[in-house]
Amino acid sequence: MPHALAIDAGGTSTRAVVVDATGRCRGYGRAGGGNPVSWDPGAAADALAEAAREALASASLRAEEIDGVVVAMAGGRTHQPQDGTEDRDTTSGLVAGGLRGPFTFESDLLATYFSGTHEPDGYAMVAGTGAAAIRVRGGRVEKVADGMGWLVGDSGSGFWIGREVVRAVVTALDERGPATALTALLLDAAGVEAGIERGAEGHPTALRRLVDVLYSVRPVRLAQFAPLAFAVPEDETAGRILRLAADSLGGTLDAVLAHDVDGPLVLGGSVLLRQKTMRDAIETSLRERDRPMPVRLVADGTAGAAVLALRHGGVPVDATVLARIGESLDRLR
Amino acid sequence: MPHALAIDAGGTSTRAVVVDATGRCRGYGRAGGGNPVSWDPGAAADALAEAAREALASASLRAEEIDGVVVAMAGGRTHQPQDGTEDRDTTSGLVAGGLRGPFTFESDLLATYFSGTHEPDGYAMVAGTGAAAIRVRGGRVEKVADGMGWLVGDSGSGFWIGREVVRAVVTALDERGPATALTALLLDAAGVEAGIERGAEGHPTALRRLVDVLYSVRPVRLAQFAPLAFAVPEDETAGRILRLAADSLGGTLDAVLAHDVDGPLVLGGSVLLRQKTMRDAIETSLRERDRPMPVRLVADGTAGAAVLALRHGGVPVDATVLARIGESLDRLR
Repeated sequence: MPHALAIDAGGTSTRAVVVDATGRCRGYGRAGGGNPVSWDPGAAADALAEAAREALASASLRAEEIDGVVVAMAGGRTHQPQDGTEDRDTTSGLVAGGLRGPFTFESDLLATYFSGTHEPDGYAMVAGTGAAAIRVRGGRVEKVADGMGWLVGDSGSGFWIGREVVRAVVTALDERGPATALTALLLDAAGVEAGIERGAEGHPTALRRLVDVLYSVRPVRLAQFAPLAFAVPEDETAGRILRLAADSLGGTLDAVLAHDVDGPLVLGGSVLLRQKTMRDAIETSLRERDRPMPVRLVADGTAGAAVLALRHGGVPVDATVLARIGESLDRLR
Repeated sequence: MPHALAIDAGGTSTRAVVVDATGRCRGYGRAGGGNPVSWDPGAAADALAEAAREALASASLRAEEIDGVVVAMAGGRTHQPQDGTEDRDTTSGLVAGGLRGPFTFESDLLATYFSGTHEPDGYAMVAGTGAAAIRVRGGRVEKVADGMGWLVGDSGSGFWIGREVVRAVVTALDERGPATALTALLLDAAGVEAGIERGAEGHPTALRRLVDVLYSVRPVRLAQFAPLAFAVPEDETAGRILRLAADSLGGTLDAVLAHDVDGPLVLGGSVLLRQKTMRDAIETSLRERDRPMPVRLVADGTAGAAVLALRHGGVPVDATVLARIGESLDRLR
């Protein structure tokens, strides 16, 4: 296995890295959202291909020189070929770019996990637009909790927080709920002028305009308003939303804990990455459950995708190799 | 004003009635969902036209014999022509069917209100797929609360209850929350076989299948699962959902109450129509607020749309005329 290509396809961005058999990253590329669940499949396939092309170019390698491709994405294993054929929708761009298989799909959560540790047993939790946790045993996902998407799951995620922010502001403007500092922040973020005049329908004009803006984007984009809650944690409404989110994430993590797996716990996703209060809440909830464990924070699943690519190529990954992946990757980006 | 056409366009069905100047209903028609907000505008326009055609045929009248058309629909007044032109998207089918204007758009909530009373001041509350309340003064909507749609509002509505049912079951199957009697009911309603085996992704197979089913329909369709909560009110989870829904509806009504408007309160929408416990909760919340008032329950806004059509034709509507509308309408359907 001279060179493998590892792709970490997320809802917001896709990262690709070329790694050699020693764990040295040789090339890196980045493109838009590459998750066919949250984007349309065509755009996702294009993003995969673009990130891969960039990574190959920066490694000065041709597609034919790559011996295996690992794609880490949400729902990874469900993209696994069931009948020996590839997932053509997702890999079409890669095939068109000259890459041969085998194409292996992996869980994005497992890639996050291996970005933070080489140990075969432990946990990973991601809270970005979505939210999910896994238990890892023997290097494989043994149990998943949540990750059920914005409509029926992802409790405590960026979408969940953003939707609660929006509902609280709509309720306040509608005089059904208490005033909140979130109102001014959300109206500003949505580009709606505040005002108290009422339209013909009996609603405040600002509320009507806000609702029009909110329904004009894809629902999952409400995640963009999550940072507003973190901006005013002292506000009663924002504080309540953040406490409920932290409780939900604690519950999701709790659902994967096993008495004979002591960690580590690898954390990822924009909510956990950017908000120390949420990381603190997770650690507090572990202490309360008498399950303290080493916690590591990772930027994304790129390094872990490279780990998975090496393992698929038969290369064992220990602490030294993982450190080499991390350091060489840092130099590339 | 010899004859007017009144259309009550809802998310699930559209009803049209031909009414003469005495308040006697002469023809009735019914078609599919006619609300361009919850259906695609083309299908909504078709439903309006179909219901109108049926009503005219059953009245043995030609389109040219109709002197005015009132369309009651959610967001009614926002469809009001701003520049003297008609809302062509919604009325195109009616125009094609030979109906002349004027086409007047009214709030569906106001139509619900006038289905239950001829009095100029009072309140109406609708809880079906969505949820909203209005205060009526001088025969016009003075204030609205909620009706903000499934994503950011409609607290306590059928959608809201259905989504909570779904989230509770997903949480239970995912071992993040308590077991609930709703699980068996929802799996059955969604046509998913129960089972405890786990798939490659670490999720129970039944959960994965359920989530696939839930995401395969338009989000607002989760409202179809609301009745499951009413089926097992003794279940702790279902009971909690129903209590929260009742509290939300009480809060929405509270937001429109004014000290100098003493009712009546007209209730409509499938949740209030079919679930006595929700009506009781509304009455209890009024008593707790020391605002007891006469409460009337109506099947839909068809009679009220006819009231609005008469009023637009310059015909005053008193208790006798309203009773005549109701009785003649009942004979037609």
